[in-house]
Amino acid sequence: MSTYSAPLRDMRFVLRELAGIEQIGKLPGYEEATPDTVDAVLEEAARFAAGVLAPLNASGDREGALWRDGNVTVPQGFKEAYQQFVDNGWNGISIGTEHGGQGMPHALVAFVNEMWNAANLSFSLCPLLTVGAIEAISLNGSPELKAAYLPKMVEGRWTGTMNLTEPQAGSDLSLVRARAVPQGDGTYKIFGQKIFITFGEHDMTGNIIHLVLARLPDAPEGVRGISLFVVPKFLLDAEGEPGARNDVRCVSIEHKLGIHASPTCVMSYGDNGGAVGYLVGKENEGLKYMFVMMNAARFAVGLEGIAMAERAWQRALQYARERVQGRDLADGSGPAPIIRHPDVRRMLMLMKSQVEAMRALACVVAAAHDVALRHPDAGERQRNQAFFDLMIPVVKGWSTETGIEIATLGIQVHGGMGFIEETGAAQDLRDARITTIYEGTTGIQANDLIGRKIIREGGVTLKAVVGLMQQVEAELAKQPGEAFAAIHAGFSRGIRALVEAATYIGANFAQDMKGVHVGAVPFLRLMGIVSGGWQMARAALAAQKHLAAGSGEAAFYEAKIGTARFFADHLLSQAPGLAATVIKGGASALALPEEAL
Amino acid sequence: MSTYSAPLRDMRFVLRELAGIEQIGKLPGYEEATPDTVDAVLEEAARFAAGVLAPLNASGDREGALWRDGNVTVPQGFKEAYQQFVDNGWNGISIGTEHGGQGMPHALVAFVNEMWNAANLSFSLCPLLTVGAIEAISLNGSPELKAAYLPKMVEGRWTGTMNLTEPQAGSDLSLVRARAVPQGDGTYKIFGQKIFITFGEHDMTGNIIHLVLARLPDAPEGVRGISLFVVPKFLLDAEGEPGARNDVRCVSIEHKLGIHASPTCVMSYGDNGGAVGYLVGKENEGLKYMFVMMNAARFAVGLEGIAMAERAWQRALQYARERVQGRDLADGSGPAPIIRHPDVRRMLMLMKSQVEAMRALACVVAAAHDVALRHPDAGERQRNQAFFDLMIPVVKGWSTETGIEIATLGIQVHGGMGFIEETGAAQDLRDARITTIYEGTTGIQANDLIGRKIIREGGVTLKAVVGLMQQVEAELAKQPGEAFAAIHAGFSRGIRALVEAATYIGANFAQDMKGVHVGAVPFLRLMGIVSGGWQMARAALAAQKHLAAGSGEAAFYEAKIGTARFFADHLLSQAPGLAATVIKGGASALALPEEAL
Repeated sequence: MSTYSAPLRDMRFVLRELAGIEQIGKLPGYEEATPDTVDAVLEEAARFAAGVLAPLNASGDREGALWRDGNVTVPQGFKEAYQQFVDNGWNGISIGTEHGGQGMPHALVAFVNEMWNAANLSFSLCPLLTVGAIEAISLNGSPELKAAYLPKMVEGRWTGTMNLTEPQAGSDLSLVRARAVPQGDGTYKIFGQKIFITFGEHDMTGNIIHLVLARLPDAPEGVRGISLFVVPKFLLDAEGEPGARNDVRCVSIEHKLGIHASPTCVMSYGDNGGAVGYLVGKENEGLKYMFVMMNAARFAVGLEGIAMAERAWQRALQYARERVQGRDLADGSGPAPIIRHPDVRRMLMLMKSQVEAMRALACVVAAAHDVALRHPDAGERQRNQAFFDLMIPVVKGWSTETGIEIATLGIQVHGGMGFIEETGAAQDLRDARITTIYEGTTGIQANDLIGRKIIREGGVTLKAVVGLMQQVEAELAKQPGEAFAAIHAGFSRGIRALVEAATYIGANFAQDMKGVHVGAVPFLRLMGIVSGGWQMARAALAAQKHLAAGSGEAAFYEAKIGTARFFADHLLSQAPGLAATVIKGGASALALPEEAL
Repeated sequence: MSTYSAPLRDMRFVLRELAGIEQIGKLPGYEEATPDTVDAVLEEAARFAAGVLAPLNASGDREGALWRDGNVTVPQGFKEAYQQFVDNGWNGISIGTEHGGQGMPHALVAFVNEMWNAANLSFSLCPLLTVGAIEAISLNGSPELKAAYLPKMVEGRWTGTMNLTEPQAGSDLSLVRARAVPQGDGTYKIFGQKIFITFGEHDMTGNIIHLVLARLPDAPEGVRGISLFVVPKFLLDAEGEPGARNDVRCVSIEHKLGIHASPTCVMSYGDNGGAVGYLVGKENEGLKYMFVMMNAARFAVGLEGIAMAERAWQRALQYARERVQGRDLADGSGPAPIIRHPDVRRMLMLMKSQVEAMRALACVVAAAHDVALRHPDAGERQRNQAFFDLMIPVVKGWSTETGIEIATLGIQVHGGMGFIEETGAAQDLRDARITTIYEGTTGIQANDLIGRKIIREGGVTLKAVVGLMQQVEAELAKQPGEAFAAIHAGFSRGIRALVEAATYIGANFAQDMKGVHVGAVPFLRLMGIVSGGWQMARAALAAQKHLAAGSGEAAFYEAKIGTARFFADHLLSQAPGLAATVIKGGASALALPEEAL
């Protein structure tokens, strides 16, 4: 049975060489993130992920969360693991020190979260949602709300949820119908049903703080009439501890393809007179508050894709080294470990190269978030925020689509054993499969990318990014050897394809709205591949410097260059085809009358 | 809940316009397959698939096959459905009339099988394996074996299995260890364990006839020392009916990702003195007999990929028409059915166009099989056999890989509901996931394609196929209008890419065995896309003729042309990138030392 081991060597390389963690540690507010602290956090997180969370992953999947009479029991070991998680202070690692957290940079927290996700995706969703709820309250809540809820949520003693979706309102929140009735005393009564509520009910903590979107009686129609409320499972007593049960109940949980240990709840509000809720911020501004959190949530799901890919890759690599079958094609020796068969090798390299590219891109994007938040210079903050905003849908969409592809490759490497649940490869695919759906499907990410993130600002940030890519392209051209020639050729082709596709989108967006949007997902994938190739090229250049300086870790750096070359030959080679689909594919997708499909 | 409805209109179109079913019906031995009979078989099969098999698909998945004390119980309704299947004469539809079957052409049987697979993949595996066992016995068995077993197996009163795999011998049968000890009376005692035995044990019939690969005591090592045996679950009594229990037992069944209703058995032979077995054909020739059946089995699994894609496509289309969410991008109307959103439309067209392309290719390949078997002219037979042999790994590998991709797209179209098991889309993916693994993984198909099917004969058949493609390309160039211009451009690019990649493989196979094999799967995919594009181009040309003749079914034929155009813009556009990977990707995949992965 494969065990998870966090890829610390690669994480350190990315943090130092590509994301500039040392510079981030010098920004005001991040001074605690010294190189030693960063290392210690990575090591401790790796230990916790491997020692506490990973051992519960398969058993949690088999057992699943159980619903009975409105109560949800998490699988064996989860409650204890959660308590340890809280006791070790992991819950508040990303929360600002002003709210009692540790305020670690996002670039570092990204890798800590990758470890939680990879070790046990189901478990990791509970703290993830809590952090989202903390952000919502801390950014927009009244001082009283903050005082009442934040300390215990930051500590992790209470968890949080996000209640957006209703049966008729999935991706389209304008259709939300849940009602909030003001009680004249500053509180509201909440009525309605919410679905797909992750950890909406569970038995790990003494309270659960629901953040709920609902409409006031006089609210305008559509998304401008949605307000955000805090609805605790237990109302707080005079001491601020859980007291009377609020009128909110979990009426069932879903039977899902994966993440079985994470209860996906149908929540019913107000069946017995109304659930007491407290307004967050202003009336009718709920969606705006949600949007602020959405970037963080989408980035977090992108990390889930990377994490599941890493998990699948580790499992497949271990199996490919151990499984003996068939003969070596070159010298006829055998039976040989299957890693020696060219197609298995190709699949493994597809896994390795894409995991590394996605990880590098995600960390660089997280680092931009840190700079955007903390840099003293306003221009730096603005440029980094724009880059962060542009890349969020790419990290989310590309990493999750690729994560699923890698999980299915993981099964393939195992052959027949991959289809047997006990191997674990099947669970990787089942768990990963949700990531292209929640927090906005890939289609929604892609529309966000081309519409809000590119067209709305006239492509300014994308052009700046292409400029940065071209600087790397020029650096590549100066390097000696076959590997760099291949990386340069692949990356150049990729940039050209990206520019062509983006130019087409810019020129045709207004007059061919639907046709251009047919190409949105192919464009997102193109942007992901080229951005990943960009980071792999940077990684190869950094590796080359270390090699030239006579590094004692030659094998690691040579592998980085070789992996970047594989990425160029096997992934960047798809870029022109994707651009062609963006440019030519709109009309043919829309040609048939709807009823002829 | 989506219901399965066989795509009869498309099947008839493919049979008549692309596969030449009328000509096949005139070949000696296929005279029964008149146009009326072909139609009647399709209609009856569609009724049986929708009315009897499809309703058991979801319940069979939930319930699963159950093992207890060596006995296996199939899910509720399966036994009765199987009896109906046999009573209606479906089991023998493909078996020659000389063995009591109906001897229908493979081109027709392909679509009947597609229907069984699409309606209930788990169920369909039992008759599929029986047909394989019938072929093994009828081709190689002694007159006594045939007389004893074939009539009841053809009728379907007894089912058959194939026992090849052992824990240490999956893809590599040279590692088979099961032993056969001659008893001096013409029988053998069989000892050993076999795994992954589909319907190795069940309660649907009075006997199960196992075909088992095992080694004789003095057998040579490797694949030249494997013999094939018939091992019935119950030995036959004097009347030829099931009598004493043989020494073969199902010791467990696997807990799998999908096809839950199909018991995947661990079979133990000879725990109590030896299972009585009867040699099929000659000693040490077992693998040769298996190879003969392998083409048929691989083709059959290719159909499973197509069937699962069709099932997923129907489910997604229905959901996309019904689910209302968001606004129409062009005119702002809404809430709109999601089929109106460009990315959903793109996904649906990806599903539709690839299903149609795969179906057309499979049927044309099956038709070649029919001609190869029955045509009076030896040259025709030989050419068609060579085409059939060449295309088997393409139909198997491409259709199953694409089937999985389409099943995962099916989940994506459903959004959050796709992840909930009750919708059925998740089952489509779980069931489809086995198809790229069993009967030879995609990697094995691809190695077969480039090695045995192309290099071994110097690319003669491939060149002939390219010649046929170029004739179609020339026809396309003569057609008027934008759609044909796009189809022509895409198909031309595809042919060029295919020729470039094949030329590279031919030139480098001997001196760069491993590097060329890195490109085997990308080449198989390329060959699949271009071959599918070829059939879609033929379909578009046929449709154009009907339109020019003033057909009353203009909508159907126009949709065919539009779908072919989509295939060109969205699938054939990938061809150059795949060729580039074949040509440039070998070195980079193999560059890292094994331990650096």
